[in-house]
Amino acid sequence: MLTLRPFRDPDWAGVWPVLQATFAAGETYSFPPDIGEAEARKTWIDVPMATFVAEEDGRILGTYFIKPNQPGLGAHVCNCGYVVAAGAEGRGIAAQMCEHSQRWAVEHGFLAMQFNFVVSTNERAVRLWERLGFSVVGRLPGAFRHRRLGYVDALVMFKALATGEARETVYHPPP
Amino acid sequence: MLTLRPFRDPDWAGVWPVLQATFAAGETYSFPPDIGEAEARKTWIDVPMATFVAEEDGRILGTYFIKPNQPGLGAHVCNCGYVVAAGAEGRGIAAQMCEHSQRWAVEHGFLAMQFNFVVSTNERAVRLWERLGFSVVGRLPGAFRHRRLGYVDALVMFKALATGEARETVYHPPP
Repeated sequence: MLTLRPFRDPDWAGVWPVLQATFAAGETYSFPPDIGEAEARKTWIDVPMATFVAEEDGRILGTYFIKPNQPGLGAHVCNCGYVVAAGAEGRGIAAQMCEHSQRWAVEHGFLAMQFNFVVSTNERAVRLWERLGFSVVGRLPGAFRHRRLGYVDALVMFKALATGEARETVYHPPP
Repeated sequence: MLTLRPFRDPDWAGVWPVLQATFAAGETYSFPPDIGEAEARKTWIDVPMATFVAEEDGRILGTYFIKPNQPGLGAHVCNCGYVVAAGAEGRGIAAQMCEHSQRWAVEHGFLAMQFNFVVSTNERAVRLWERLGFSVVGRLPGAFRHRRLGYVDALVMFKALATGEARETVYHPPP
């Protein structure tokens, strides 16, 4: 049975190989493909507000972090990164992690969630985030140097979270 | 005469009040309005690749930083932040700093420049960046909590830099 729970220190031995394989592929995350373990740990565990793991029978099948996307006056919008272990795709683990992260975000006062850099060729991810209520709100031309495909676009995706609270929002239409 | 030159340590005494006043206003940057001096210095000086000042007769009238916007596979796109001292607006200092930063970026191998969080109500800035060749490529609904106006949109702006080099770019049209 798959369990989503907070990262604990002994989990790192299972988290690091999952991150390393994902980053080394150079197809979905901008982290250097040859990133070192210490740097990866800093990024995934130390800097974020919280990190979670998806565990099944003692194996780490996925992990995600959550943090404010901006400091101060932008800190009501959070940012997450999700990774699923090779061989564990197609089981809905990313979707479960994303829904878990949205609940956690609402509980901690966030009003929205933003993904800054969804690689446009990662079509499975784009479709999944759209199914979960995210919209493409920006497109960064050639911003990702895909290891196989060369320069490809990255997408900015955004979702207002259902917080149950009205908020005063001043929208400014495009000029 | 206005000079643009690299930040040197003694400049901090002139840079910090300019940053502090800008961040305290809470209208253009997401840094906490009550940000401390050490945190501001870390963000503006230590983290970036380089920081520059616009100096006139020993006074700091503006400053900007430049850094990669993403690590690794996104590090060919740079990011900058610019601040002009109160009372020095309208003299073209921001434009000069932005043009200076673009030249510096090209010299250091960057292929594009991205602003992640241009506050939509900062119309002077939006118009200036557009005049300097940037396009609005994204719109983040209500992502900035403006001190006077409440939640307003933030814009993502982007410019491919004229590097003189052809680059292999694979563009993926929107779905």
